[in-house]
Formats: sequence, C-alpha cells, structure tokens
Amino acid sequence: MSKEEKNKQSDELTKEVDKANEETVDQETTEKEKPEKSELELAQEKAEEFENKYLRAMAETQNIQRRSNEERQTLQRYRSQDLAKKILPSLDNLERALQVDGLTEDVKKGLEMVQESLLQALKEEGIEVVETENFDHNLHMAVQTLPADDDHPADTIAEVFQKGYKLHDRLLRPAMVIVYN
Amino acid sequence: MSKEEKNKQSDELTKEVDKANEETVDQETTEKEKPEKSELELAQEKAEEFENKYLRAMAETQNIQRRSNEERQTLQRYRSQDLAKKILPSLDNLERALQVDGLTEDVKKGLEMVQESLLQALKEEGIEVVETENFDHNLHMAVQTLPADDDHPADTIAEVFQKGYKLHDRLLRPAMVIVYN
Repeated sequence: MSKEEKNKQSDELTKEVDKANEETVDQETTEKEKPEKSELELAQEKAEEFENKYLRAMAETQNIQRRSNEERQTLQRYRSQDLAKKILPSLDNLERALQVDGLTEDVKKGLEMVQESLLQALKEEGIEVVETENFDHNLHMAVQTLPADDDHPADTIAEVFQKGYKLHDRLLRPAMVIVYN
Repeated sequence: MSKEEKNKQSDELTKEVDKANEETVDQETTEKEKPEKSELELAQEKAEEFENKYLRAMAETQNIQRRSNEERQTLQRYRSQDLAKKILPSLDNLERALQVDGLTEDVKKGLEMVQESLLQALKEEGIEVVETENFDHNLHMAVQTLPADDDHPADTIAEVFQKGYKLHDRLLRPAMVIVYN
C-alpha cells in the first residue's frame, strides 16, 4: 500500500467515523427532542395526578368531617345512656321502698321527692318510662301470659312487673309485663 | 386597465393575501412554539401547585382526624357529666331523708340501698365524692369560718354542709364546708 493509498484509506475511515458520530449526534438530538415533548406530557400527567389526588383528599376530608359530626351528634344524643342504665335499679329500689307498709307521711314524702327528682333528671336527659298501653314486642317483654277474653282482648297488658325506660328512640330496657293472649 | 393587467393585479393581490396568511400562520406557529416552552412551565407549576395542595389537604385531613379523636375521647370521658349533675340533688334528698328521726329499720335499709346503688352507678361512670380532709379552694367552698386555735389549725374543715362531687379530674360541684381560719 502506498502512502497515498494509506492516507486515502485513513481519510475514508475518518469520514466513516465522522459520519457515525454525526449519526449519533442526530440520534441524541432526536432523543433529546422526544423527551422534551414527553417532559411536558409527564408534567401534565403529574399535574393531573396531583389534581386528582387533591380532589380525592378534599372529598375524603369532607367525608371525615361529615362522619365525625354525625358521630359527635350520636355521642351527644346518647351520652347519658350508660349512667342512666345504671341508675334504673335505684329507681326500682325506690319504688319497692315506697310499697312497704307503715311508712310515715314524712318518709313517704321524702322517698317520693327522691323518686321525682331522679325521674326529672332522667327526663331532662331524654330518658322516659316506656308506655304500656298496648303490648308492643319492641318495648315490652311478656314474662307471663293470661288467657284473653271479652273484657281483656289479646295484646292487652294485665300488669307491669317492672317499668321499662328509653333514651330518645333507644330502648334502655324493656318493660316486664303480664299480657293477655 | 386591460384584462391582462387586471389579472396581473388580481394575481398580485392573491399573492399578497397568501403572503399575509402565511405570515399569520408563521405568527401562530411562533406563538405556538413560545407557549410550548411555557406550556411545560405551566404544567410543571400546575403539578407543583396541586402537589402542595394535595399535601396540605392530607395534613389537614390528619389534623381533622386527630382533633376528632381527641374530641370524641373528651366527649366519652365526660359523657355522664350532665346527668350526674342533675342526679346530685336526689342524693342530697336521700341523705336528708336518712337523717329523719324514727325511721324503721326496713325503711332505713331501703333508703341506704337506694343511696348505695346510686353512688355505685356514679362511681362506675367516674363520679366520686370530693374528699374533705384539708381545705382546698379548688374543691371546697367555705360557707362559714370558725376561728382557728391550737386544736383546730387554719384550713382544717370543721363540718361538711353539702358533699361535693367530681367526674374524673373535673369538679361537678364543690363541697360546701365550714372551715377554721
């Protein structure tokens, strides 16, 4: 190979390398332009994603607030339930004490005062004696039945064994009754 | 003006219009390319804005949940406060009834049973009689004072007029006392 030939070959190699380099640069430019477009897309996607996340978080916050309010209202409405339930036996004892024979007028008055003030306190908190006009299995428990007749139609309450109590719409304990059946 | 001249003029007008349109298109392209860069910026800003909003909303949600839990716990802890306060006069009446002279054993037992069951119900809900060993202005109200002496140092309680009650750490009503001073 002559020197001239070598140079020519070398030149051609250089050109080949240059061409290859140019192609690489072109490719890089293409790749650079491609991500430039997708950077916008990514940013848009990210914006959309966080907008959705934000909107969901806001909705969730509202849900939590709503639920929390409902819960608080329920807690408030039935807050006296536990203490009221525990006080009912005292009321039963008072009623029994009032039925003892030979109470002096003073003692009777005293007991009645305690009973009335307890019932008043309970009433102010939404607790009332369950009505016992007609038998209602939602409010009454039949501890005994008597045969119904013309004077005593079925589902008439013959006697109340123990009073029932409710707190607003919630039954604290059913009335124990004897019912015609 | 010859027909040819007219056509030429018309052609030139058309060219002018075309040129103007081209310029508009160019302008639009320029405007499009300019915002293309700022579109990315806008998208990135929007993404950042919603990410911040989202993070704030999440933090707010956690705050609301924490506050709601604390509130619920407080409501639960002091739920019996109102009913308990209203029951205290009944306890006072019971105590007075027990001090009446000439009670039969049966009546006395009955009254004590009611009293004990009421106190037990209150205790189970966290309500207890305020101690009256030494005068404490946070728990007691001095309705009368007696001069202190060697046998009765200052701030010793001489007599409890009316019992005080507290619900956990919260005073429902102070004890009414006579205190040496």
